[in-house]
Amino acid sequence: VERVYAGDLAQHIDKRVLVQGWAHAIRNQKTVQFVIVRDHTGLVQATHRREGDDDAVAATIDTLTREAAIEVAGTVVRNEIVELRGIEIVIDELRVAGPAAAELPIGEDPGIPAREDWRYLVLRKPEQRLIFEVQTAVERAMRGFWHERDFIEIHSPKLMGSASESGSELFQLEHFGRTAYLAQSPQFYKQMAMAAGFERVFEIGPVFRANPSFTARHDTEFTSVDVEISWIASPEDVMTFEEQWLRHVLSAVRASHGDAIRDAFGVEVVVPELPFPRLTMREAYDVLAERGHRIEREKGDLDPEGERELSRYVAERFGHEFVFVTDYPASARPFYHMRDEADRTLTRSFDLIWKGIEITTGAQREHRYDTLRQQAEEAGVALDGIEYYLDFFKYGCPPHGGFGFGLTRMLMVLLGQRNVRDVTYLYRGPNRLSP
Amino acid sequence: VERVYAGDLAQHIDKRVLVQGWAHAIRNQKTVQFVIVRDHTGLVQATHRREGDDDAVAATIDTLTREAAIEVAGTVVRNEIVELRGIEIVIDELRVAGPAAAELPIGEDPGIPAREDWRYLVLRKPEQRLIFEVQTAVERAMRGFWHERDFIEIHSPKLMGSASESGSELFQLEHFGRTAYLAQSPQFYKQMAMAAGFERVFEIGPVFRANPSFTARHDTEFTSVDVEISWIASPEDVMTFEEQWLRHVLSAVRASHGDAIRDAFGVEVVVPELPFPRLTMREAYDVLAERGHRIEREKGDLDPEGERELSRYVAERFGHEFVFVTDYPASARPFYHMRDEADRTLTRSFDLIWKGIEITTGAQREHRYDTLRQQAEEAGVALDGIEYYLDFFKYGCPPHGGFGFGLTRMLMVLLGQRNVRDVTYLYRGPNRLSP
Repeated sequence: VERVYAGDLAQHIDKRVLVQGWAHAIRNQKTVQFVIVRDHTGLVQATHRREGDDDAVAATIDTLTREAAIEVAGTVVRNEIVELRGIEIVIDELRVAGPAAAELPIGEDPGIPAREDWRYLVLRKPEQRLIFEVQTAVERAMRGFWHERDFIEIHSPKLMGSASESGSELFQLEHFGRTAYLAQSPQFYKQMAMAAGFERVFEIGPVFRANPSFTARHDTEFTSVDVEISWIASPEDVMTFEEQWLRHVLSAVRASHGDAIRDAFGVEVVVPELPFPRLTMREAYDVLAERGHRIEREKGDLDPEGERELSRYVAERFGHEFVFVTDYPASARPFYHMRDEADRTLTRSFDLIWKGIEITTGAQREHRYDTLRQQAEEAGVALDGIEYYLDFFKYGCPPHGGFGFGLTRMLMVLLGQRNVRDVTYLYRGPNRLSP
Repeated sequence: VERVYAGDLAQHIDKRVLVQGWAHAIRNQKTVQFVIVRDHTGLVQATHRREGDDDAVAATIDTLTREAAIEVAGTVVRNEIVELRGIEIVIDELRVAGPAAAELPIGEDPGIPAREDWRYLVLRKPEQRLIFEVQTAVERAMRGFWHERDFIEIHSPKLMGSASESGSELFQLEHFGRTAYLAQSPQFYKQMAMAAGFERVFEIGPVFRANPSFTARHDTEFTSVDVEISWIASPEDVMTFEEQWLRHVLSAVRASHGDAIRDAFGVEVVVPELPFPRLTMREAYDVLAERGHRIEREKGDLDPEGERELSRYVAERFGHEFVFVTDYPASARPFYHMRDEADRTLTRSFDLIWKGIEITTGAQREHRYDTLRQQAEEAGVALDGIEYYLDFFKYGCPPHGGFGFGLTRMLMVLLGQRNVRDVTYLYRGPNRLSP
């Protein structure tokens, strides 16, 4: 007998079907037994009328526990009394494929430790599954856009022989008598692809940060989306690429999951107009000062409240959810960002802020060996740890730029969630390494 | 002026174009200067006739070095004398975008350490780039097949609070006062997705093995392709899925890159017939014994020469490149493989061997808590390290199975390469952590 999803049963009235899923609820009455079966497409009521002593189905339901994985075979019938779409299955066989212990370890609305300890039970909820369906759709659309433009997919190593961007927040381990470090980003290796002539590359993969923060935006491992493009003339080329790419991704997600996201999370997926608004960091500071939010300009960066306030301004002024903030001061950027020729205190870089949260850092990179080396020295980077990286620029590297993009942060904003934990399959933080 | 790829210049005769690439070769003569420019689509000759004292182009070419990243603007003309497709560019501007030091650090055919030290220079060769174009096409086709079947993409954590499959070959690190381990496979976490009701998941991501081997097939970090499927009736369901999936992938690769692979590597991409041949391990031993290759049956596994000999047999007998070897003895398999009910010394598992190399291990998993716990105990696994994993099966887990698939091994076979180093973007092994 053919398996049918709960959501498709209306097309199988009067047919015998097999439904596979979970015992969502059980009502065990004297003459009739009801099992609500849940699969990822919905719920269906399965009904059994007790038949006396030798009734195997009744005996199974008598000891059935909630959340057991079960298989129900029976005939689909219309029954107007049934609340679930007026359909029920008259059971002729019921098998427990995966038993469930009687007492579930978490209730309906568990707090943070319980909901992470029993992550798989939380993920059984339809809106939780939706998060990962959306993630799948997002990545699919991202890759579709790249494939149409002949990008090469790379898998850069996560084990590194020396520190990548900075010496801080690094995890280290012993690797056959040497110290290895876990990659904080594929930055250096996606740039190597430019030196290798790959021209356009992408990578979606894990990155690691030994960040002791306990904020809702931080984790020690997350999924990074990385893009690097050769032969750009300016960071504007990177921003133009990114905004077109994001428009494509959000169009696809709106089409496939817009309604489901609205229903589950009350968030409208808006396909953004092009171009996204752009503000230099200087302009951003002026806007914030006018609106009463003061940041010390010396920092050269925005604080979380500054990002939120700037997004409110952009929403009011341009009716837009996104804003590129450009021309970050060199003091707030890594040494490999290219400097502005006219004002070397500024970099040819940008952040992308979406509804108050930074989701991207991007830049044109310095591709000239001598200049890069000098910038590293000025920034106080230990040169012996990055000689291998500087070497990428010794034998002809084209001008290039790119961006890193936090997948979990993007999902958090897209789905109106407040914590990266809830959009991460299995969260990792300073005090969370299991399951 | 518009950028045109070298390979497309024939469509731009008598037009002014911009070509961006590398100075592949330079012939600096008294009256005429030639620069062969290489981009990822091919080579083109760019020509400059010296014009006397104030000749900026001539001066640039006079100091130009091989492999510099350059931009050449000029007019495309037909010239029958030119060996490269009878086309040349008459240069009117030449700019060095990324200079190259005069002496290249490697020659035409460098040995292993040099070719890894200067990986990006090696990757500039067209057939090296082809490897990663093929990898991109392979992954794209894999995901296309999954997307059509509603798979969910997961990114499982690489940091784990305890050992995953075995205690050996594990990298460990300090994670905020606790010991973390690097995931050797997403095995436990893709099974968690089954307990979460995700039904069908895939992941392509890095895995880590502290394997001290120096063989051509081993590395300490590689890209694993993982699939897990719920509600299977037997491992046959997993094998049927995998062979259809591989047929789809190889059809796509043959269509997009079959000719290029034949030209560069002399390998024919064969679209395999379905079903793939299947042999039980017992049958495999018998075949090998008949052919004079003896393995101690107690081991329960095949050795590399056994895998090669078995593939020779399958090629002769069935005209097939693939063979599933099934029913591995429990002694050779991890505790979580489901046992054969009729003979509990055997598992419901398989390997897939392609042209003499094992590329997949798969199985139906034991999804019943009590049985799984007992199998772990019998196998001598420390239960306190895997309680979190056993918990996945406490509250209703459906029957499921899946496989892990080595992307680099697959590429090695597909492209007729002998060493995983040559199909890995940046190889990591016991004595290789850089660049």
